[in-house]
Amino acid sequence: MKYVDGGVTAPKGFKASGVHCGLRANTSKKDLALIYSETEAKASAVYTQNKVFGAPITVTREHLKNGKARAVIINSGNANTCNADGVVKAEKMTEFIAEAMKISKEDVLVASTGVIGQPLNIDAIEKGVPELIKNLSYSGSLDAATAILTTDTVKKEFAIEVQIDGKPVKIGYIAKGSGMIHPNMATLLGFITTDISISEELLSEAFKESVNYSLNRVSIDGDTSTNDMVIILANGLSGNKKITSKEENYYKFLEALKDISLKIAKLVAFDGEGATKLIECKIKNAKTTEDAVKLGKSVIMSSLVKCAVFGNDANWGRILCALGYSGVDFSPEKVDVKFAAKNLEVPVCEKGSSIPFSEELALEILKQDEVIIEVNMNDGIEDGFALGCDLTYDYVKINGSYRT
Amino acid sequence: MKYVDGGVTAPKGFKASGVHCGLRANTSKKDLALIYSETEAKASAVYTQNKVFGAPITVTREHLKNGKARAVIINSGNANTCNADGVVKAEKMTEFIAEAMKISKEDVLVASTGVIGQPLNIDAIEKGVPELIKNLSYSGSLDAATAILTTDTVKKEFAIEVQIDGKPVKIGYIAKGSGMIHPNMATLLGFITTDISISEELLSEAFKESVNYSLNRVSIDGDTSTNDMVIILANGLSGNKKITSKEENYYKFLEALKDISLKIAKLVAFDGEGATKLIECKIKNAKTTEDAVKLGKSVIMSSLVKCAVFGNDANWGRILCALGYSGVDFSPEKVDVKFAAKNLEVPVCEKGSSIPFSEELALEILKQDEVIIEVNMNDGIEDGFALGCDLTYDYVKINGSYRT
Repeated sequence: MKYVDGGVTAPKGFKASGVHCGLRANTSKKDLALIYSETEAKASAVYTQNKVFGAPITVTREHLKNGKARAVIINSGNANTCNADGVVKAEKMTEFIAEAMKISKEDVLVASTGVIGQPLNIDAIEKGVPELIKNLSYSGSLDAATAILTTDTVKKEFAIEVQIDGKPVKIGYIAKGSGMIHPNMATLLGFITTDISISEELLSEAFKESVNYSLNRVSIDGDTSTNDMVIILANGLSGNKKITSKEENYYKFLEALKDISLKIAKLVAFDGEGATKLIECKIKNAKTTEDAVKLGKSVIMSSLVKCAVFGNDANWGRILCALGYSGVDFSPEKVDVKFAAKNLEVPVCEKGSSIPFSEELALEILKQDEVIIEVNMNDGIEDGFALGCDLTYDYVKINGSYRT
Repeated sequence: MKYVDGGVTAPKGFKASGVHCGLRANTSKKDLALIYSETEAKASAVYTQNKVFGAPITVTREHLKNGKARAVIINSGNANTCNADGVVKAEKMTEFIAEAMKISKEDVLVASTGVIGQPLNIDAIEKGVPELIKNLSYSGSLDAATAILTTDTVKKEFAIEVQIDGKPVKIGYIAKGSGMIHPNMATLLGFITTDISISEELLSEAFKESVNYSLNRVSIDGDTSTNDMVIILANGLSGNKKITSKEENYYKFLEALKDISLKIAKLVAFDGEGATKLIECKIKNAKTTEDAVKLGKSVIMSSLVKCAVFGNDANWGRILCALGYSGVDFSPEKVDVKFAAKNLEVPVCEKGSSIPFSEELALEILKQDEVIIEVNMNDGIEDGFALGCDLTYDYVKINGSYRT
């Protein structure tokens, strides 16, 4: 498999576009996006597990009951959540697209991101739709990827190609990340397109496995957003023989889907609000994979660990401490900890106790922009990992004045 | 009941002291404290629930098996945790006091706070003990209260007096707070003395109820320390008739104990690392008190809410969001939210949806140093509260370089 250009418009038969419609004051910032498949696509989605969820989730869930879709409309600048008229307006967004494209509104999905509890300017969206549709193109992925961003500092767009039955099958992915990213949920806006031909059931299974392996292992700040969801559309246009069982071709697809999902997840973590570093916590030799992931998440979610990494402080005691309140049962006196980056590493704790180590080497490692915290539980044979970022002055700054 | 001077030395028969023994480089910062009862006291303690816990907890737990104690030795500057020789050294700390005071080492408890995973300088402690004992006095509470502080910016010391059987019964309390404060645990170092005469069983019950009502409702940063504990000593010297059943006098004592505990808890929250404001989340009309506390904690623990309060931003959507991922079942469309401070208040959300409100008034409220977030669930008749603080640049600064 190999990475290719084109994002969500890399797979056959997908178009996309992004425009500024006026939800944001800044006219140079796009705020409305559309992804469109020329033919009906099988579709699946995962949603936030927050009890308070946005109106777009209510509507998308309803429209996805038949497992099919043609288009996704997405706005940034307003979450359309905690508004009494939210569902009516989210429904309208799908109707605008359905009417213009002469498709059923049930074939249109909708997502929103931005501030909660402010009425959505639906007129701006209605006025923006004609241009949004006019701009739809086979190279429109970047416009869409840009339009869905909020406090993100880099666009999140990849495409991967894998040979199945001698056909090039492609998967495209765009995402919006930054704040409010927390594991165990569909934790951001993510849109995946693919031209593979696959049964609805296996598409959904591969999709969910890939989300668990990637986005559900990311935490920026422990907050779970009300709005986030990830959607996959598969239109079958690549021409491969339809995958209907878990044979070699299924696993080829799954592997590619997991790979691109992890790439997006790392970028989301690295681009967490105010972050200067990606923190990966690798847990080795835990009793179960579930334990390993839980331990890793506890470490990358600790505010104290995150501040220490920001400050280049090899304060490994905080790592032991975070393992200790993870809820996982383990033996502290068996735990080894090392910091690593690139091809450097420094062991700092063995058998749960302090060992002498080079502060200079630790400093050099902590100064890298991808820091690995490797913990060996010496308590089993299962591994796992979690992805996060450091906690910085800029996180506080961004979130102290988000609405203004 | 009334507040009085004297801290932990206000109750009859208690002495205390605090000295600099050399665990800290800064010679003007005291780092070793002692609390001593002239007669044997009934004692009870609550400990961190972290799987990784400090050596002092192992030793104190062991020494408290008989439910009695005479003295507590406490050091700051080093947590004596994750050290292979930690338990031996913690045990030694109790022996130093036992030998000098000619009491059993089982009557001496021990607590430590500071950095994890650095060998404890036991020689410095041994050398400091003679002066520590020499300085013991009936007015030594403030010295002890100062010696146990770490990144705290204010001392935490109170005493309260309540009449029982016509006798003045006193309760003294000193505490160390700041970072790593998280609910549902004995979440800091707290030392309570009282001269009440009460059965061991009722002392322990009143003590645990007071901790649940106060410190277990505080969260600074979601991190649960490896070392924290709260200890109560009751020496019975006030002369009241021994309380052996839950009659009026028991409830008088309980009320005073809860009151002083809440006062300490508020001070701990207000003095959270880098904090500029106390945030109190009051939850009204939840299904159960447990739900109410859980909902309140979820709000005061949200990094996004904490940053918004720091930035004086009335971003109430984040409050709804935090309620939504609390794990409590409720109806978002019934929820009302208001901000309050002093005698000001501003409703910002009704029935789960946005309502127009005065940004000026909201700003005035958020600028106060005690901000109340009042949430009405309209879903039952039980209330609860949780205490926290804002998340600031200084939190990041303090925790980015704690060891240096």
